Amino acid sequence: MTGDGARRVCGVAPLDRAGPDELTFLADKRYADHLSACRAGVVLLAPEFASAPAAVGARVVVAKPYDALVALLPRFHRAPERPLGVHPTAQIGRGATIAPTASVDAYAVVGARATVGDRAWIGPHCVVGDGVTIGCDTWLVANVTCYAGTTLGDRVTIHAGARIGSDGFGYAFSDGAHRKIMHVGRCIIHDDVEIGANTCIDRGSVDDTVVGAGTKIDNLVHIAHNVHIGRLCLLMAQVGIAGSAHVEDGALLAGQAGIAGHATIGAGARVGAQAGAFGDVPPGETWSGYPARPHRESLKATAALFRLSALMKRIERLLDGGD
Amino acid sequence: MTGDGARRVCGVAPLDRAGPDELTFLADKRYADHLSACRAGVVLLAPEFASAPAAVGARVVVAKPYDALVALLPRFHRAPERPLGVHPTAQIGRGATIAPTASVDAYAVVGARATVGDRAWIGPHCVVGDGVTIGCDTWLVANVTCYAGTTLGDRVTIHAGARIGSDGFGYAFSDGAHRKIMHVGRCIIHDDVEIGANTCIDRGSVDDTVVGAGTKIDNLVHIAHNVHIGRLCLLMAQVGIAGSAHVEDGALLAGQAGIAGHATIGAGARVGAQAGAFGDVPPGETWSGYPARPHRESLKATAALFRLSALMKRIERLLDGGD
Amino acid sequence: MTGDGARRVCGVAPLDRAGPDELTFLADKRYADHLSACRAGVVLLAPEFASAPAAVGARVVVAKPYDALVALLPRFHRAPERPLGVHPTAQIGRGATIAPTASVDAYAVVGARATVGDRAWIGPHCVVGDGVTIGCDTWLVANVTCYAGTTLGDRVTIHAGARIGSDGFGYAFSDGAHRKIMHVGRCIIHDDVEIGANTCIDRGSVDDTVVGAGTKIDNLVHIAHNVHIGRLCLLMAQVGIAGSAHVEDGALLAGQAGIAGHATIGAGARVGAQAGAFGDVPPGETWSGYPARPHRESLKATAALFRLSALMKRIERLLDGGD
Repeated sequence: MTGDGARRVCGVAPLDRAGPDELTFLADKRYADHLSACRAGVVLLAPEFASAPAAVGARVVVAKPYDALVALLPRFHRAPERPLGVHPTAQIGRGATIAPTASVDAYAVVGARATVGDRAWIGPHCVVGDGVTIGCDTWLVANVTCYAGTTLGDRVTIHAGARIGSDGFGYAFSDGAHRKIMHVGRCIIHDDVEIGANTCIDRGSVDDTVVGAGTKIDNLVHIAHNVHIGRLCLLMAQVGIAGSAHVEDGALLAGQAGIAGHATIGAGARVGAQAGAFGDVPPGETWSGYPARPHRESLKATAALFRLSALMKRIERLLDGGD
Repeated sequence: MTGDGARRVCGVAPLDRAGPDELTFLADKRYADHLSACRAGVVLLAPEFASAPAAVGARVVVAKPYDALVALLPRFHRAPERPLGVHPTAQIGRGATIAPTASVDAYAVVGARATVGDRAWIGPHCVVGDGVTIGCDTWLVANVTCYAGTTLGDRVTIHAGARIGSDGFGYAFSDGAHRKIMHVGRCIIHDDVEIGANTCIDRGSVDDTVVGAGTKIDNLVHIAHNVHIGRLCLLMAQVGIAGSAHVEDGALLAGQAGIAGHATIGAGARVGAQAGAFGDVPPGETWSGYPARPHRESLKATAALFRLSALMKRIERLLDGGD
Repeated sequence: MTGDGARRVCGVAPLDRAGPDELTFLADKRYADHLSACRAGVVLLAPEFASAPAAVGARVVVAKPYDALVALLPRFHRAPERPLGVHPTAQIGRGATIAPTASVDAYAVVGARATVGDRAWIGPHCVVGDGVTIGCDTWLVANVTCYAGTTLGDRVTIHAGARIGSDGFGYAFSDGAHRKIMHVGRCIIHDDVEIGANTCIDRGSVDDTVVGAGTKIDNLVHIAHNVHIGRLCLLMAQVGIAGSAHVEDGALLAGQAGIAGHATIGAGARVGAQAGAFGDVPPGETWSGYPARPHRESLKATAALFRLSALMKRIERLLDGGD
């Protein structure tokens, strides 16, 4: 560490706009040009930039500046103000059990026989259905709906507008109409899951819909009835998973990917952005494209396709004997 | 029927985890292996499994076990508790008409001159705009928004977080800015429509946006201004329909499919998952792929593409005279 | 102008169903057949249709009938009824500043230290986080969530259910779990932006997420952390933009398009519907397809692909020496 060891910072910003009371970092050569003009209070630097010129208040050389920054971020994060106990405007249904250390925020509606665990926080305008179970330290941010039949584990975070446990899309056509198939399966979200804003997870029809512990789900994702998601998966924004599909432990589904009904995505598999997996993806493999194929095969097909258009006339002439 | 005819069950579960107080079913050979270990109270069985070994309480042999189960599901479904009349926290606008048998739930906001029909249920935290008409037996589950200009028929169900009748995406560029085109068309949802969680249906600009009777719409679907959807259609999750498109009676749009503006999807047509229909799809046909083509043609093109990459070098050598 | 100059109209409708008290227009030959049966009170007509037979009340010939209609639409639009001041049910946090001319509607929740500008309107059931700044004439329609860290400019409109400033999808895997990376960047929405229903815009991690002035965003769009959107862009429904991507001034992203993380879409570029831009798109160019390529190249590749399947057998026979 060099420079003013007593320098105080109260915020974090990128290298190109951090001011004298902010912390920043430089980990990547691509951004090194910004250093000379940087006016940050403190900069975390990789060793290779240790003595580069910069008018910063203090420089701290660390092996992995980005990791160091991530470790420091919670110090700069201001937690939202949380009410104590049940807000006077909250509506609590008959027979509901709210832990004394839980918070139920303004205008939240908690249904009959629901259970809210220790230190859980039901944010403003959340609607929790009859009989729903909410674990300890679980946080429903705001405007969240949990239908009846939902069970949330401990340390689950559900972002604004997510809908958990809504009816699946199931109809049987008879007598000239789509007749609704009643959904009686549950929607079970295990511990340490985070669910993004406006994401929808349907309850099961007869089986349950399940999201395994430690899985993280981004915004605007759709998870249909009876889907089973394993542990520690990552589902990026706008992914759609059709009914009864299985996504095994540690799988990663990139943005806008679609998984067909009853397909299985194997443990540790990766499905590329916008890919359409119409069947199973083997464990550990990376698949991409539409329809999804092993990534290498998809890349080759795409490369061939873009060369093809240039060759097409020659191919046709050759086939027609005119070359 | 064999076994304990007096056996009582109070729930439904899949074959592999149904317990002594639950009902289950076996319709498909693929799951027959689970039967021997099954401890269900009652199992509905296809005739071929009538005498297979299983330690279940009672077995009921029926021609179509799944259909029998679906018929029984409503008996296991616990309807949510519904308040009677207008909840004291609900806000009712001037001149609104609420049928005496309707329910307006906690914190619902109903605009001026709105009409709510017999036995309709406006769930908690729903916002119903000025002048909106809501038919009989229609249910807005929770956190739903209906903008002014919306008309809902009878027996419509709108799931949590759906937005009905919002402004369409229409601007005219002039004087260096995108100027908003005022939307004055309506958003008309006919009888027996079900709309999934967080789905958005815009109001019309000059024409109306219309969803025909008996059509079912899944979660996170986007329906733009002036779109006309016919009767008995099925729109699966994350489908997007651009402005002024027409989807005729009985059409099916699979998950994440996109329909271009002004395109017509003919009656009974099917559009595959993730397909991009940039033009019309004729009635009764199945189209898929990007851009969408008749399904058989798309499959052939894909098959050719994946064979192409292997042949590409040989083709190039041949064209260059080196083979 | 010909016909009854005193004719009054109180609504707008398309040519084929406008009634005697409604205004309609005819700008396009395709719809000219409807004119003869049209019973509209007033019809705006292009000069070429000036004397075509129609039983309308009055006809007004204008060079650009659609533009004339758009200019008249605000006269037919009934603005929603807006409460004055802070509704008695609204919850205002400690230290919040609400302009005297602003409206805070039923059940809105405004966090501590938030600021709401002149004539702004916080609609029913909106949740505004601690310290959020909301500019003048900005309108949150209903059921909107703005997380702490959000800043909205003047004349911003946010439609129902949009989520602004939620945590980005950022985790670091260590000790067998995805550890959340705390997000401390802001979410800055500049003047004159309109944001569609149920759209999600995450806050930045260290950098900010920024949407430039005059940009318009449709429904169900996802904008990830640290994304920078320029001025006057158009983002159509269900577009997804991954983390740290840049979309420069005046770019247009069509429906369901996806932009990869860290990609740059140049000023004035256009990305086609459902396109997947895995890298940069140069300024002013139109790209389409998956993976996205210059539009002309994509069209050629697609055309070649659909001819290929018919030629495939002949190609294989030729390569195998059998032709």
